[in-house]
Amino acid sequence: MGRVLLRVAYDGTNYNGWQVQDNGRTIEGELNRALTDIAGEEIVVIGASRTDAGVHALDNIAVFDYDGPLPADRFMYALNARLPEDIRVQNSYEVTSDYHPRKRTTIKTYEYSIYSAKVELPIVSRYSYHTFYSVDVEKMREAAKYLVGEHDFKSFCNVKTSATTTVREVVSIDIDVKGSMIVLRISGKGFLYNMVRIIAGTLLEVGRGALTPEDVKKILDGCDRTLAGPTLPPCGLMLMSITETEDENSNISDEECVD
Amino acid sequence: MGRVLLRVAYDGTNYNGWQVQDNGRTIEGELNRALTDIAGEEIVVIGASRTDAGVHALDNIAVFDYDGPLPADRFMYALNARLPEDIRVQNSYEVTSDYHPRKRTTIKTYEYSIYSAKVELPIVSRYSYHTFYSVDVEKMREAAKYLVGEHDFKSFCNVKTSATTTVREVVSIDIDVKGSMIVLRISGKGFLYNMVRIIAGTLLEVGRGALTPEDVKKILDGCDRTLAGPTLPPCGLMLMSITETEDENSNISDEECVD
Repeated sequence: MGRVLLRVAYDGTNYNGWQVQDNGRTIEGELNRALTDIAGEEIVVIGASRTDAGVHALDNIAVFDYDGPLPADRFMYALNARLPEDIRVQNSYEVTSDYHPRKRTTIKTYEYSIYSAKVELPIVSRYSYHTFYSVDVEKMREAAKYLVGEHDFKSFCNVKTSATTTVREVVSIDIDVKGSMIVLRISGKGFLYNMVRIIAGTLLEVGRGALTPEDVKKILDGCDRTLAGPTLPPCGLMLMSITETEDENSNISDEECVD
Repeated sequence: MGRVLLRVAYDGTNYNGWQVQDNGRTIEGELNRALTDIAGEEIVVIGASRTDAGVHALDNIAVFDYDGPLPADRFMYALNARLPEDIRVQNSYEVTSDYHPRKRTTIKTYEYSIYSAKVELPIVSRYSYHTFYSVDVEKMREAAKYLVGEHDFKSFCNVKTSATTTVREVVSIDIDVKGSMIVLRISGKGFLYNMVRIIAGTLLEVGRGALTPEDVKKILDGCDRTLAGPTLPPCGLMLMSITETEDENSNISDEECVD
């Protein structure tokens, strides 16, 4: 029995998220269907980040067990021949049989893209959130500093979370500007449900002047979701990478829900 | 009677090009419909670049005549409230009544994006052409030099062109690389039908080693469409800008067909 790892990129626009649901197509569902077709027996993947409906990914990870004749490195080709065009396996290779993508200590990096202009731009609207407001990026950077580090992010978590603890470590938040596009790049050791989208929504409130950078410190300390800004829409969110860290002490449970 | 100019951005994926056709939705058709709705009388725009089916634009130009009460600068809002989401008027303002967008000397800049990797990437596939080949960009740059300047581009023109002359001036070709994405930026005083997509297809043949840079000189001199590379698909092409030049001697006829 071998375990195979898939590196998966997708445009999440037309999917009801990663995880198999009663209703709607999902990334996991499409992978399971294609793998079952290849293997001739039911295969169910385990994903690293269970991204929400409409969220995109450059490099999500899934693993599955397989003991048939197809070499691990051929799965990418067999899968891409069977998957819809908006899901593409970028690589496939064998890992050890105890490899569980949600029980490893990793740094996940997400980007949230905000397009700030008086009119929407069609060619960016599929992968960004449009705001009519002009945005003070320096103020957003000031506010972001309060969020870096290990904190209780209860204020920045969907109240429907099933997480046993709302303490998480944000490793870095960088904010780049290119023309009218503002890109928040957030790295952390696991995120709470909707956490990146609520952080983006709160920092945008700061950028447009509805909150001060210091308010973000108060929101964090308040541990109350109603204090923070809105959850921005999923289209602006992209899972960029999942990187293994040296540190082997993962304290993030398997029940963690990810943005 | 006033003439109003529109700066129009669109995702061309779902359109049968700019120009009104017997079949299918077009950018011009959507503008005419929305303007007629606003004005209460039939309005037909004149476009600067009649982009082909599936081609995108950041900044195309259209003008129309109107003598009603709505100020020119309000048309952008009235139109965006009525247009499909994948067309957005970025600006609207009054111009002189003799302003004809295809009878002015302008520099048009197009970008053609080629994604070179062993697997497609869903989040870029809407706006780029995927090639499995690895590409030697330096060789493409060498080849591109032969195309800059005033030449007979008959080899780089769809044989169905109605143009009276196939002589055009290419002002510059720059090729940028960002990761696996290769972006050809081509500026010129008007282009022939499919010219940018055939140039991109021919330069890609050079990049992958099927042609030498010197072959491009021979192809240009041969004045025969069958010598050049393939017409790359429209999804990779984007009209970036149309800039007025000092030079008032336009020799590009109104019948010109544009990529």
